Amino acid sequence: MRIYADNAATTKPSRAAIEAMLPYLEEEYGNPSSLYTLGQRAREAIEQAREEVAAVIHADPRDITFTSGGSEADNQAIRSAAEKGRKAGKTHIISTAFEHHAVLHTLNRLEKEGFRVTLLDVHENGLVRPDELDAAICDETCLVTVMTANNEIGTIQPIRALGELCARRGVPFHTDAVQAVGHLPIDVDADHIDMLSASAHKFHGPKGVGFLYARKKVPLVNLIDGGAQERGKRAGTENVPAIMGMAAALKESAARMDGDAERMRTLRDRLITGLREIPHSALNGDAVKRLPGNANFCFEGIEGESLLLLLDDRGICASSGSACTSGSLDPSHVLLAIGRVHDVAHGSLRLTLGEDATEEEVDYIVRNVREVVEYLRGFSPVWRDLVSGKANFIL
Amino acid sequence: MRIYADNAATTKPSRAAIEAMLPYLEEEYGNPSSLYTLGQRAREAIEQAREEVAAVIHADPRDITFTSGGSEADNQAIRSAAEKGRKAGKTHIISTAFEHHAVLHTLNRLEKEGFRVTLLDVHENGLVRPDELDAAICDETCLVTVMTANNEIGTIQPIRALGELCARRGVPFHTDAVQAVGHLPIDVDADHIDMLSASAHKFHGPKGVGFLYARKKVPLVNLIDGGAQERGKRAGTENVPAIMGMAAALKESAARMDGDAERMRTLRDRLITGLREIPHSALNGDAVKRLPGNANFCFEGIEGESLLLLLDDRGICASSGSACTSGSLDPSHVLLAIGRVHDVAHGSLRLTLGEDATEEEVDYIVRNVREVVEYLRGFSPVWRDLVSGKANFIL
Repeated sequence: MRIYADNAATTKPSRAAIEAMLPYLEEEYGNPSSLYTLGQRAREAIEQAREEVAAVIHADPRDITFTSGGSEADNQAIRSAAEKGRKAGKTHIISTAFEHHAVLHTLNRLEKEGFRVTLLDVHENGLVRPDELDAAICDETCLVTVMTANNEIGTIQPIRALGELCARRGVPFHTDAVQAVGHLPIDVDADHIDMLSASAHKFHGPKGVGFLYARKKVPLVNLIDGGAQERGKRAGTENVPAIMGMAAALKESAARMDGDAERMRTLRDRLITGLREIPHSALNGDAVKRLPGNANFCFEGIEGESLLLLLDDRGICASSGSACTSGSLDPSHVLLAIGRVHDVAHGSLRLTLGEDATEEEVDYIVRNVREVVEYLRGFSPVWRDLVSGKANFIL
Repeated sequence: MRIYADNAATTKPSRAAIEAMLPYLEEEYGNPSSLYTLGQRAREAIEQAREEVAAVIHADPRDITFTSGGSEADNQAIRSAAEKGRKAGKTHIISTAFEHHAVLHTLNRLEKEGFRVTLLDVHENGLVRPDELDAAICDETCLVTVMTANNEIGTIQPIRALGELCARRGVPFHTDAVQAVGHLPIDVDADHIDMLSASAHKFHGPKGVGFLYARKKVPLVNLIDGGAQERGKRAGTENVPAIMGMAAALKESAARMDGDAERMRTLRDRLITGLREIPHSALNGDAVKRLPGNANFCFEGIEGESLLLLLDDRGICASSGSACTSGSLDPSHVLLAIGRVHDVAHGSLRLTLGEDATEEEVDYIVRNVREVVEYLRGFSPVWRDLVSGKANFIL
């Protein structure tokens, strides 16, 4: 059995996405900035795609800027709000300690440029508390950026409450919705979202394309200067095939969202129930307020990397955390943010089911994770110390 | 007859490029940062692609950074050299007045940040003179950036002479080679190039991908912060299918380059000879030192935009200049830089032949351009003033 259970890292492009791309790779290859028919057809196509993408998040298409992906969108959103803040003498930004590195590293850069950053506590359950955001906002705050759903532990923030609060306090609100768009309902008006980042390859679109939603009240600063594409806010020939693939994937994901989510939640809970039976294990993040397909566990006494390699041998694709940091030996900053100690955080496993997951697959995963965890503990010196009482169990 | 003669704007992706992309869209969709086999296969594929891309320009693969395209590569190259300069107290940059806007607008931004920019004269023939570069370099110069071949008039700069000069004077040399890579031989060592930008869709690869070559002596600064992809210099999940398509296209273009160029030069010269017979017309840029497929003309007494629309009706895709600025009513900054006056610059036509162009197509283009120019002049008040002697011919 081969099971792809790492849909938070990337998803398989849907047939609809690939079919939408092919004509624009093969025959409709015009540059959308060209005046002739071949170019104008490409122009019309991406403007239609812009409308489709906007409709899914209830946005004005004019507020959608196509980017090369979620990281670029995060960078542009944050730097734009910071620039607006700087001009108004406001240099305080509020975020959380467990944002994606595209957000955190952009904030690090801004700190070096003189900004002050407050990182809200995400508590043991991986959730921000609106009253704590309220307390953190001050007159100098120029941006609040909180991710809609965490990419590792899948917890879903109370975005509407946070957005309302920001609106009331007059602070622009950005959300990295890379894990949420196409999976959760989003309404930028009802949710009071001023800026939002998304990435196509997280919802069965192609890699290398995403979008930034930004209301006019936050003027975008360019990361890439040059031609006048994207209303002058993002230079470079538009990636027409990828944009078409993104729109097709998002349209399909949005149409299937409710049914998919319900089915996936049932499977996710079956997965969580099964894995909880492994001794000295713990689910990371709130059990209910989490993405429909996400199960993230810590297992005491093992190394996450060995677990992944043995699961791969058994046909299961999973991760220990973000794919973007998998080269790193440091434990996940997300797990540390929810209070896991280093040793425990090292033994983490993220399973993110796809829409086509089955009960049989879930049971196969549970059985194999259990076997592999037992096997690894069999020759783990850390585990030996734990069972012999030389060290104390935490989980 | 339908003829695509705007290959400087974008090219049709080759069959090889599309075939190289498809497996990575369909089945090999893993995230290259993932530890399991599906991810590692994607990792190996893009590292193989990096070697192939590097080989074409005789570069070390470790000096290749994949980007979302040429504009991003230009921005990152220039900002990186500027940052290195700033740290050393060197804030003078040398370029030319007819660079692509991805270069010029980045330089504009740096001027606002306190940099001083010298734009070299490109003279009537559209060529930089090495002795003028030599005279412009001073102790504060931290970067020379000159495009390999111009995107509008196709003139090819004496890159090796410029590179040698920069090496001798100890100044980093960047070249925007977006129009040259895959079309002209480039050897970053022999040419003394320190940084080079390229875009796949200009050599029959897909849109949305390009690369930046940069020697270690110019440390890259990130445009996009986040994950550790591309050795930490360009965050965001790698666009695996597009990278594979780019490498396949470049490999093919490089293998065919010599034969293609010779055939295209013959056709280009046939095109130029034919268009020169139109009264009061002029070729823009040097007749010999130009890209194999490029013919760029000014026709007195007409508007370039009307010419393009009527040519489109006759099945010919052409442009008046850069696709990136086609929304603008301003005359081409490139044509102004080579000394064309506003009125003449407005009546420009860029024809850029593809590798599969034929004599028959060239003759069709010449016949139709001649007919359309005559037709437009028939009701042009400017032309009436010229022929009646109320105004003086320039061409």
